[in-house]
Amino acid sequence: MGSVYNSVGSTNTRPVIAIIGCGAIGSYYGARLVQGGHDVHFLMKSDFATVRSHGLTVSSCNGDLQLPPSSLNIYSDVNAMPCADWIIIALKTTSNHFYHKLVSPLLKANTIVITLQNGLKNEEQLGHLFGAERVIGGVAFICVNRITPGVINHTAHGLIRIADFCPIDNCRVQDIAAVFTSSNIPCEAVEDLARCRWEKLVWNIPFNALTGILRLTTDELLSNANTERLIRDLMSEVIEAAKRLGVILDSDLPDRSIQHTRQMDSFRTSMQIDMERGKPTEYESILGWPLCAGTKAGASMPLVTMLYRMISAREQAINGVD
Amino acid sequence: MGSVYNSVGSTNTRPVIAIIGCGAIGSYYGARLVQGGHDVHFLMKSDFATVRSHGLTVSSCNGDLQLPPSSLNIYSDVNAMPCADWIIIALKTTSNHFYHKLVSPLLKANTIVITLQNGLKNEEQLGHLFGAERVIGGVAFICVNRITPGVINHTAHGLIRIADFCPIDNCRVQDIAAVFTSSNIPCEAVEDLARCRWEKLVWNIPFNALTGILRLTTDELLSNANTERLIRDLMSEVIEAAKRLGVILDSDLPDRSIQHTRQMDSFRTSMQIDMERGKPTEYESILGWPLCAGTKAGASMPLVTMLYRMISAREQAINGVD
Repeated sequence: MGSVYNSVGSTNTRPVIAIIGCGAIGSYYGARLVQGGHDVHFLMKSDFATVRSHGLTVSSCNGDLQLPPSSLNIYSDVNAMPCADWIIIALKTTSNHFYHKLVSPLLKANTIVITLQNGLKNEEQLGHLFGAERVIGGVAFICVNRITPGVINHTAHGLIRIADFCPIDNCRVQDIAAVFTSSNIPCEAVEDLARCRWEKLVWNIPFNALTGILRLTTDELLSNANTERLIRDLMSEVIEAAKRLGVILDSDLPDRSIQHTRQMDSFRTSMQIDMERGKPTEYESILGWPLCAGTKAGASMPLVTMLYRMISAREQAINGVD
Repeated sequence: MGSVYNSVGSTNTRPVIAIIGCGAIGSYYGARLVQGGHDVHFLMKSDFATVRSHGLTVSSCNGDLQLPPSSLNIYSDVNAMPCADWIIIALKTTSNHFYHKLVSPLLKANTIVITLQNGLKNEEQLGHLFGAERVIGGVAFICVNRITPGVINHTAHGLIRIADFCPIDNCRVQDIAAVFTSSNIPCEAVEDLARCRWEKLVWNIPFNALTGILRLTTDELLSNANTERLIRDLMSEVIEAAKRLGVILDSDLPDRSIQHTRQMDSFRTSMQIDMERGKPTEYESILGWPLCAGTKAGASMPLVTMLYRMISAREQAINGVD
């Protein structure tokens, strides 16, 4: 435990926690940490004014939460924030080019950077910028939407799995997991980050892409035998890609994943919401990087390729980017 | 020329022409035939009242047309129409279950039924109901949209290829082609209907489906290298399916087809318009039947299958049909 990257939690002081990116994920988990009595500091952009006036309202299947402005430390300027022990990054991956600007001012020697973002390559990018040993990857299995600024709706699931990007001290992820768990956030410290990421991609690739392109909710996709079959075919391609990269996923993962999805009822993924609103989607991190990694490793991914190509045309037309 | 199915045109009497289905295709070609001095009778549904008051307005790259109500024979009830020598069917294929109701009242012994509809199986269905020897298939290569009731916009191309479904008298298709051509409708009488249909499917399957699902115009699809590549991959599957069915298409068809599409500028296909308006699409005739025929013949069509499955979920969600 001699590392400078000891969990602050393990030394019995209260960690200063910065939440960067207050969409659904950042706001929800941040609110739970506030509820758990932690020292949380939110960097907000579009929601800042509303939350400063009205606080955070969370409807949740795990218990509602109403946090008045007086209970919240919120900021619109990262330079006004205190340096943090833990920086939890919940930005849309389309904003990863702001990593340097948003994270650097908060760093001290032993700051840990935890990304809860979607897809691949976030840990790599953070590692390049701030040192791989700081980085912890978190994979959130949760159905949560931001309804309007400051208003969050959590409808199902909620588990976070966290793992060191560059394993140096297994204790710190366990300490972080303990803090999360004590704040009503189910959290597991695991060892294999790649496995976690690919397990989520098995869900994210078919469901995010198809709900987005077709503008249909998860239950609408699963109420049609043709689409369920397509979802399973896409999952098979992702599982095969993971296997080529040395990540062996459980053979019953598609069944479990579809079963979990049925429990979500009528869920709108982030990609569906983005496409309906004409906003950029996270298609590069959710589809592009996995496709690149899988095909480089020799996997055949014609259906994922087709999804990627379809979304890229829509992104270009709507957002003027390729 | 002893057949009862002689072209009326060849006997120098003026054929009575019924147009069934007055969307973009039926209204455009019908208007050209009126302009050509022919005895045309339109069966209209949603456009009836407007056209009775204001006539038909056609903006066309081949010359504008304004047909006042007094120059048009229009009907809202098929039973009020005269029996026809030629019945030109331009219904959406989703209305093919009305064939019997809409065609039977117009038939006499030598009536010819010409379908200008999209996709496969229209000739078969008409043949089953009214006798295969009556049926002529027409494939329209045209960019035409119905802007509002009675207002048609023709922006590019316009050729019709016609062929006997059940070749019995090569002269009659040539006679019909001559009547069309004399009415400013480029028309070729050909022998191989299947080849025509599949040649159009090479265009229709990728462009109708992708413009529909992605809500992008043809030029938006072609401005993106990823989508152009996807379009070419889809075309290859369709060409392979045709080949398995004995239809050998030219190897440069994808290049020519994409080149023709670039000339269309910013075209919205019928499937794009239907999907944007939340209306049923012709996906069964354009994708479903070709997929069925191709895969039965041993073709591998994973990408077309994926398109079909995606659209079927959307149809079910929007229209409550599977």
